[in-house]
Amino acid sequence: MTIKAIVFDAYGTLYDVQSVSSITEEKFPGKGELITQVWRLKQLEYTWLRSQMGAFHDFWAVSQESLAYTLDCIGIPYEKAVFEEIMAKYRHLDPYADSISALEALKGKQRAILSNGSQDMLDDLIRNTGLNAHLEACVSVDAVQIFKPNNKAYELIEDKLGVKPEEVLFVSSNAFDACGAKNFGLKVAWIERVTAEALRAEIAGLDKAGPTTMFKILRMRMEHFGMDPDYRLSSLNELAGIVNG
Amino acid sequence: MTIKAIVFDAYGTLYDVQSVSSITEEKFPGKGELITQVWRLKQLEYTWLRSQMGAFHDFWAVSQESLAYTLDCIGIPYEKAVFEEIMAKYRHLDPYADSISALEALKGKQRAILSNGSQDMLDDLIRNTGLNAHLEACVSVDAVQIFKPNNKAYELIEDKLGVKPEEVLFVSSNAFDACGAKNFGLKVAWIERVTAEALRAEIAGLDKAGPTTMFKILRMRMEHFGMDPDYRLSSLNELAGIVNG
Repeated sequence: MTIKAIVFDAYGTLYDVQSVSSITEEKFPGKGELITQVWRLKQLEYTWLRSQMGAFHDFWAVSQESLAYTLDCIGIPYEKAVFEEIMAKYRHLDPYADSISALEALKGKQRAILSNGSQDMLDDLIRNTGLNAHLEACVSVDAVQIFKPNNKAYELIEDKLGVKPEEVLFVSSNAFDACGAKNFGLKVAWIERVTAEALRAEIAGLDKAGPTTMFKILRMRMEHFGMDPDYRLSSLNELAGIVNG
Repeated sequence: MTIKAIVFDAYGTLYDVQSVSSITEEKFPGKGELITQVWRLKQLEYTWLRSQMGAFHDFWAVSQESLAYTLDCIGIPYEKAVFEEIMAKYRHLDPYADSISALEALKGKQRAILSNGSQDMLDDLIRNTGLNAHLEACVSVDAVQIFKPNNKAYELIEDKLGVKPEEVLFVSSNAFDACGAKNFGLKVAWIERVTAEALRAEIAGLDKAGPTTMFKILRMRMEHFGMDPDYRLSSLNELAGIVNG
């Protein structure tokens, strides 16, 4: 079956969520690493937990709640304006170095985002970073009020893009998302941004794993769900070879 | 409304999941802390993610999958027998110092466990540690094939114990579980095993937060869900005062 649409996860796949560390460190010197990692870990947890509780808040709200949790937990007093400046980074995240070139190489196919992000923050993000010029569609889970990896989120691909699951290649660096898409029945490419060897070497070289290493351990390796992706790629630039070859 | 049943979470509330560190450190010296924390964090993630994907595996399987993930990620080769010895600790976890005394003080009421644990591992655990003598019931989510904080899990309380939600005090030290029970509509006591002040002092005293501190940050403070529990207690021993007025 020919692949008609390539559907990308946004946060962690096309965009580097770690790029919030520039603003967290600027606002709270010496605390940027801890804030960045705890925030992202709690942000994802909150999507999973809210989905499970049937208590959806959109991703902007979830990102605020998890940032508030993080600052409160660490014991960092902050002003509303600073909080909002940090949040604003989610509308200006750095794309990965391979994002635009990979999208460009897939021109002619339907290129889309399916993201947990709320529609307005996604629309701002792709416009602010110029990725909108390389995408045919940007789909938010807002429409179903539940987050990935719930099947209802992946159903949006057919509903919004008009392509059948077997015509789709889903692309994510988030292992839980790659597994969710595979479990749903899509063809999946997992972007392996940290290899097993590199992570093991990093752990072996440390006296204690700090926040960034803990983040990599928790989030950047393939889950043991028995839902392995069809492709493991080290760069988004490898996609064109799969889709066109 | 009189409280007829006190329903406890097991792992982290009556039982110290950190007590697996004795066996993880014995088997893999110098790695016990990292294994213990990553394992527990991934174990919980796997319950949330499997529930979301509609791909339930029971808690014994989930605990095996998350332990395998952990050892693989860190790069620790292991023999099957060692893996099984570590897993076996889940049938012999240490109860907290206040568990038996608190249950004893609630004698006369219906005392029960509602746990993510599979029925056989829970039954073994309460028998091996003598808590079975102080409990009228032990309910596993196995019956509904979905984990807390899904509402279906909390519905088991009425279904299995024959008490109405308003007759129940639900007790958990896991903030996500306390919030889930509150969201479902139960009266909830959260056991605050680490105070905000203690955790902030711990973080302030460290150059980098290690695995145990990261665990405390991620798991041991109240979530920012707007689902705050009715009671915040520092010990299970405070329950009798609430229940008996």
